[in-house]
Amino acid sequence: MNKEQLVDKARVLIEALPYIRTFFGKTFVIKYGGAAMTDEELKKAVILDVILLKYVGVNPVLVHGGGPEISQWMRRVGKEPRFVNGLRVTDAETMEIVQMVLAGKVNKDIVGLINRYGGKAIGLCGHDGNLIVARKHPGDLGLVGEVETINADLLHLLNREGYIPVIASIGSGFDGESYNINADSVAGDLAAALKADKLIMLTDVEGIFAEEGDPSTLISSLEIERARRMIAEGRIAGGMIPKVEACIKALESGVPRTHIIDGRSMHSLLLEIFTDKGIGTMVVS
Amino acid sequence: MNKEQLVDKARVLIEALPYIRTFFGKTFVIKYGGAAMTDEELKKAVILDVILLKYVGVNPVLVHGGGPEISQWMRRVGKEPRFVNGLRVTDAETMEIVQMVLAGKVNKDIVGLINRYGGKAIGLCGHDGNLIVARKHPGDLGLVGEVETINADLLHLLNREGYIPVIASIGSGFDGESYNINADSVAGDLAAALKADKLIMLTDVEGIFAEEGDPSTLISSLEIERARRMIAEGRIAGGMIPKVEACIKALESGVPRTHIIDGRSMHSLLLEIFTDKGIGTMVVS
Amino acid sequence: MNKEQLVDKARVLIEALPYIRTFFGKTFVIKYGGAAMTDEELKKAVILDVILLKYVGVNPVLVHGGGPEISQWMRRVGKEPRFVNGLRVTDAETMEIVQMVLAGKVNKDIVGLINRYGGKAIGLCGHDGNLIVARKHPGDLGLVGEVETINADLLHLLNREGYIPVIASIGSGFDGESYNINADSVAGDLAAALKADKLIMLTDVEGIFAEEGDPSTLISSLEIERARRMIAEGRIAGGMIPKVEACIKALESGVPRTHIIDGRSMHSLLLEIFTDKGIGTMVVS
Amino acid sequence: MNKEQLVDKARVLIEALPYIRTFFGKTFVIKYGGAAMTDEELKKAVILDVILLKYVGVNPVLVHGGGPEISQWMRRVGKEPRFVNGLRVTDAETMEIVQMVLAGKVNKDIVGLINRYGGKAIGLCGHDGNLIVARKHPGDLGLVGEVETINADLLHLLNREGYIPVIASIGSGFDGESYNINADSVAGDLAAALKADKLIMLTDVEGIFAEEGDPSTLISSLEIERARRMIAEGRIAGGMIPKVEACIKALESGVPRTHIIDGRSMHSLLLEIFTDKGIGTMVVS
Amino acid sequence: MNKEQLVDKARVLIEALPYIRTFFGKTFVIKYGGAAMTDEELKKAVILDVILLKYVGVNPVLVHGGGPEISQWMRRVGKEPRFVNGLRVTDAETMEIVQMVLAGKVNKDIVGLINRYGGKAIGLCGHDGNLIVARKHPGDLGLVGEVETINADLLHLLNREGYIPVIASIGSGFDGESYNINADSVAGDLAAALKADKLIMLTDVEGIFAEEGDPSTLISSLEIERARRMIAEGRIAGGMIPKVEACIKALESGVPRTHIIDGRSMHSLLLEIFTDKGIGTMVVS
Amino acid sequence: MNKEQLVDKARVLIEALPYIRTFFGKTFVIKYGGAAMTDEELKKAVILDVILLKYVGVNPVLVHGGGPEISQWMRRVGKEPRFVNGLRVTDAETMEIVQMVLAGKVNKDIVGLINRYGGKAIGLCGHDGNLIVARKHPGDLGLVGEVETINADLLHLLNREGYIPVIASIGSGFDGESYNINADSVAGDLAAALKADKLIMLTDVEGIFAEEGDPSTLISSLEIERARRMIAEGRIAGGMIPKVEACIKALESGVPRTHIIDGRSMHSLLLEIFTDKGIGTMVVS
Repeated sequence: MNKEQLVDKARVLIEALPYIRTFFGKTFVIKYGGAAMTDEELKKAVILDVILLKYVGVNPVLVHGGGPEISQWMRRVGKEPRFVNGLRVTDAETMEIVQMVLAGKVNKDIVGLINRYGGKAIGLCGHDGNLIVARKHPGDLGLVGEVETINADLLHLLNREGYIPVIASIGSGFDGESYNINADSVAGDLAAALKADKLIMLTDVEGIFAEEGDPSTLISSLEIERARRMIAEGRIAGGMIPKVEACIKALESGVPRTHIIDGRSMHSLLLEIFTDKGIGTMVVS
Repeated sequence: MNKEQLVDKARVLIEALPYIRTFFGKTFVIKYGGAAMTDEELKKAVILDVILLKYVGVNPVLVHGGGPEISQWMRRVGKEPRFVNGLRVTDAETMEIVQMVLAGKVNKDIVGLINRYGGKAIGLCGHDGNLIVARKHPGDLGLVGEVETINADLLHLLNREGYIPVIASIGSGFDGESYNINADSVAGDLAAALKADKLIMLTDVEGIFAEEGDPSTLISSLEIERARRMIAEGRIAGGMIPKVEACIKALESGVPRTHIIDGRSMHSLLLEIFTDKGIGTMVVS
Repeated sequence: MNKEQLVDKARVLIEALPYIRTFFGKTFVIKYGGAAMTDEELKKAVILDVILLKYVGVNPVLVHGGGPEISQWMRRVGKEPRFVNGLRVTDAETMEIVQMVLAGKVNKDIVGLINRYGGKAIGLCGHDGNLIVARKHPGDLGLVGEVETINADLLHLLNREGYIPVIASIGSGFDGESYNINADSVAGDLAAALKADKLIMLTDVEGIFAEEGDPSTLISSLEIERARRMIAEGRIAGGMIPKVEACIKALESGVPRTHIIDGRSMHSLLLEIFTDKGIGTMVVS
Repeated sequence: MNKEQLVDKARVLIEALPYIRTFFGKTFVIKYGGAAMTDEELKKAVILDVILLKYVGVNPVLVHGGGPEISQWMRRVGKEPRFVNGLRVTDAETMEIVQMVLAGKVNKDIVGLINRYGGKAIGLCGHDGNLIVARKHPGDLGLVGEVETINADLLHLLNREGYIPVIASIGSGFDGESYNINADSVAGDLAAALKADKLIMLTDVEGIFAEEGDPSTLISSLEIERARRMIAEGRIAGGMIPKVEACIKALESGVPRTHIIDGRSMHSLLLEIFTDKGIGTMVVS
Repeated sequence: MNKEQLVDKARVLIEALPYIRTFFGKTFVIKYGGAAMTDEELKKAVILDVILLKYVGVNPVLVHGGGPEISQWMRRVGKEPRFVNGLRVTDAETMEIVQMVLAGKVNKDIVGLINRYGGKAIGLCGHDGNLIVARKHPGDLGLVGEVETINADLLHLLNREGYIPVIASIGSGFDGESYNINADSVAGDLAAALKADKLIMLTDVEGIFAEEGDPSTLISSLEIERARRMIAEGRIAGGMIPKVEACIKALESGVPRTHIIDGRSMHSLLLEIFTDKGIGTMVVS
Repeated sequence: MNKEQLVDKARVLIEALPYIRTFFGKTFVIKYGGAAMTDEELKKAVILDVILLKYVGVNPVLVHGGGPEISQWMRRVGKEPRFVNGLRVTDAETMEIVQMVLAGKVNKDIVGLINRYGGKAIGLCGHDGNLIVARKHPGDLGLVGEVETINADLLHLLNREGYIPVIASIGSGFDGESYNINADSVAGDLAAALKADKLIMLTDVEGIFAEEGDPSTLISSLEIERARRMIAEGRIAGGMIPKVEACIKALESGVPRTHIIDGRSMHSLLLEIFTDKGIGTMVVS
């Protein structure tokens, strides 16, 4: 590489400075999922982005689910996954698999990857330090849960001591039983409890479109009011609903900015944070 | 209950005082396994013992494996467990199951139980905070590992902040890959790294017998020298070998006392700690 | 002792766990007096109870008077004790004796005893760190005082550093002069100033009876309103009045629970704390 | 007062500056006794000196006995004081009086006085925080003791938090019993344990004279060797012996300077510290 | 010096004790200027006063300008100083000289002097840690500024760590440019921002006179109301106006006492602080 | 900018990660001088580099001189600069100008610039906190000094609290007088005293050449031995000598790496740090 090229690289670092200053000491809750969690190259890119954030003074907190891997393991032991309104019907045996896959496999694999690339991660689920206390979901879905309270002390401690918390979306019931909770919704509640400065949802779409399926109508800034209307009108649908609702929950609890971004793009996290315009849909109050 | 009986209870608390004073602020590494981990009543008793220790000023650190559950899950997906010299042959798929079962199921179930009975536990494996760095075992056993180094910072932090660490015996290789490590040996290395004051191995026997199978020959205090001779002579054999070796490792690293006790007795942990004689075999240097 | 018996003992410890959890980190002000301060066996039992409390995470603060010993020393130097409405008439010479007996003898003997049984105690009177600032009692009683303000900083410091404060009920006037203050009343004010979680008065009765002298009418929970009425009606009388008033003072300053218990029972402190029902009269708001 | 006079006063403050700088953050152990403890005017002057020292950054630690008051109280209860080699024969009853007078009266009066003039003092004896652990004196003197160990933690804590510790020369035996110890010797041991920068003995003489009784032969600097010789030759005698021995003990434990000064002079403490020459005898190694 | 004289000196120190107690831990902002900054003997006296204050527990913060030296250096490079309403017209070149003289010469000379006499000083201007953020003065005076905000964090840090901050009255504009600000006004704003306990203006007059030029009419206590009236009536005029206005600003922001004193008297700082009456004019609310 | 370009930028940030990890928490002493201090564009680039370093966890400490500006101001007041062996002959008047220019102008301008671009800088000279204690240079050069000792406490404090120290190369003599010290040599001594991880000298050449004047012979790694030989042989000459000597001094005091780099290149600081090869000459032991 010649000097010119090196200087160009240095310039890029310097261009990031105003963003680094802005976010120094801030907490970002990042919902990690979709292609960014399965594609090897994307996975590495996200992990590196997260580690970089930590080194430049941001406290990233990762939240993840792991639906596809759960279904795959269920099938390996002869159980057919069943969903109602997008929520997995979770009998006791399914819950056991959910917990093993999320807390034992997906979570620890992410932790191992972060450590490998030079970060210091800790993998947690809702049981650890009673992080996520859950109640049963009102529907007839078995051990599906909803967040009751978040005990954020442990996360503050880990952030302060230089660790990156990685959190599997499993809740802890009042009798110590496990609950399967939607990871989007855990991310929203965590952002609220941590008084995070950003909630970022990594998805497999470019953002929210005004016209369904038409990327040219990407909404870069979506107000709560309009988001609610779009949900009511069915224009925000399926798996996007819990993501938008998590954003609204966080916004209403004082998180200033929430973002729905395309995890299929390389380094979408850095792009969202280190560019003025951002790259996906920002939900704002 | 009448007053007399209440006063008797108070007397029991007071009798424990000299032991509480002696162990205040000390660290105990407890290898949790065997019947104490499967029998519901014993399980609850151990958990309560551990929580009580924490409240009276001891820092308990739990280490566990989970062989039977691993084998059971292997069979559920059609794999037959295979052992060489007592070590599980661990191909990549087996390692995935080992990690899911240990770090996702057994570990988090213990954490949930501790929280349920009023403690604050955190479940970790070797990846978390790079706690257990492992190298490949020299034998031809696949992903079986040995402890390379322990990063005890995280445990000191958690102990200080009132948490009970619960550790699954999985190591983290230099490239972030997972290794299956014998839990006894992890316990020994952790005790050494933490400069623990006690290493306690919960087993399914009463201790070590001078005459095999004859409980009346229970050795209450066993010197390293004699332990080594008994191993050489085959009088300590099978699963007891790694336990005794873990004790020796810990003793040689400065842990003053190590104990092999019978986890099938109710509250054996408390009995070991809060009686002068102890109840099992103490290995001493 | 056989194993069965040992396990029974362990069970007793475990039964105490929920109470230990509840009171962990809390502050108890204990008015120490009566038989519990004179009978050797009772004395040792109280001291052990207090030390145990400290080791299981409670911050006990002891307050004591010492009337009988004062009178005895007065008589040894030829002075006849005189009381008006239960308060000792305290001329300068009497005050000197009061101070020597309380701060020099009773206080330091308690401290010595606590240290002997394995606690770390500090003996203080109102002069130390200006702990108890006093004004003259309005009556014509000489150097009898009332609490003006409590400087609790020193106690918070000592509690935090693992010491058990033992406090003689002597106040410090604005010119550094000493005042003889009722120890019950000092205990009430200290509990209020420390925002204690319990005020416990050790007495020589089983509690407060609905029918005077009839133990079968022991009131286990007494509301402030009713307590005041009973005082007005003379059904609470004599030395019990300042005790009940100290409880009321503490309750009105935010101390949640106050107890009048029978110091003549062995380990009455532990019984009060580690049983659901308690053993004496709880005064509540 | 006219301006000229005021400026003169300011100059005096400024003259003290180099001494203040030199002693900032240092610890001085001051043996308080003799006329300075009985004469009202001298008493006030010493107390003010000590408070001033604290405010200009020195950590003064006061040690006191109280022989005359003990003898007086013994006589009041009909006991005749008896001495062997200058040490009070101390039966159990005498010990009780010693403790009451020293820890209850003298100690708390000093504390009250310091508080009155604006300092924050804490009165302690050897029992408090196990400050002075004592063993029995070999002679046949009853409860006369010698210092076994000093637990200086408590004093460091109090110094750091702005308190002036005032210490009565009573030791705590292994079974919690009290011992009567020579205050000079306690001061020497405390200076050694605290790694004090100065040990200052307030006496009722101007210092040590080369020719007995001839003030014109005051020795301003006395080496250990010569001091020992003078004791052997009987030229240092009586109550001066334990003072000089305390100085030697302190010097040999690393205390750099020890002083024997005349407590009958007003503000002798300040003069010793804030003048180059000092005013009494400095014992040096 | 004989003993009598030494004791007199000690007495003077002791007389200062009540003042030392009163001001322990308090912050004083001292505007340093006039003869006290030019006369060698006065300069040394002020510096010693400031160091003494630091050692007896006060946090002195010095603020200075340096008008005469600026004018002298301007003339050396051929520029004629010009003033409008007492404010120096400050073109870019003048500003360069102002900064060099204030921040480079006067400031560092004071720092050097404090260090020489045993203090630990740090010289700062408004740029350092963005201490004084300034906006342009509305008049047509070039780079004359007014205080916009004070960032007091740095000063709190330095005070706590034992340093004496010395501050040149230069402000930092939003684009990093320098502004020449009146030092009196900086002192007032600093006192306000630091929540100082005293603002002391060293001047070259004895204080404010009721009758101009008649020292016998010195006003020892001047209320804001009356001060404002005297300014309106022209009886407070010239360079005294910004001083009085700085006092008013500080008083209205909660500084309890502000003083205008005669820096031409030796040790006027100490006299103001360590006498009951003070020596100049106290402006009060 | 299109997405591709943005992703390229993100990649550059990620490429920097291994270097950021390596240098996290480390201290770099940077000698700032030459073109990088005069050319506006280069100046801004250096300042931004320094701020970026601070945000990514490095503690940069800047040291500067300012020869050309000093000479220019000397001439403005009619003094002709004179040098002996590259050292400025410094009479008292010259020293005054040196101090004004370095500590008042150059230093505070750098501080203002850092603050303007988002850092928090503090400008210091050797007087501040007695940072650089100096003795007179043995030559007959007037007030030219050499470093006697460095008091690094203040710098550690400022680093820890997020400030960037900027240090003018002026020393403080034992009587508080100022000394003019070579800035290269100050940088070397500071690096040694701070136990820095890097000393970086910004110069106006590309590094050290094996063949004088032939850039193709740039030595990328120069051992002390060879450096000394090159000085002896005159192949390292003039202003490069003190730079190389400063590097040697630092290396011999334990600084692991020292660099002589070309300050005329944009972002040379970042290039040196964030590339494997570096861009100038590394002097190594």
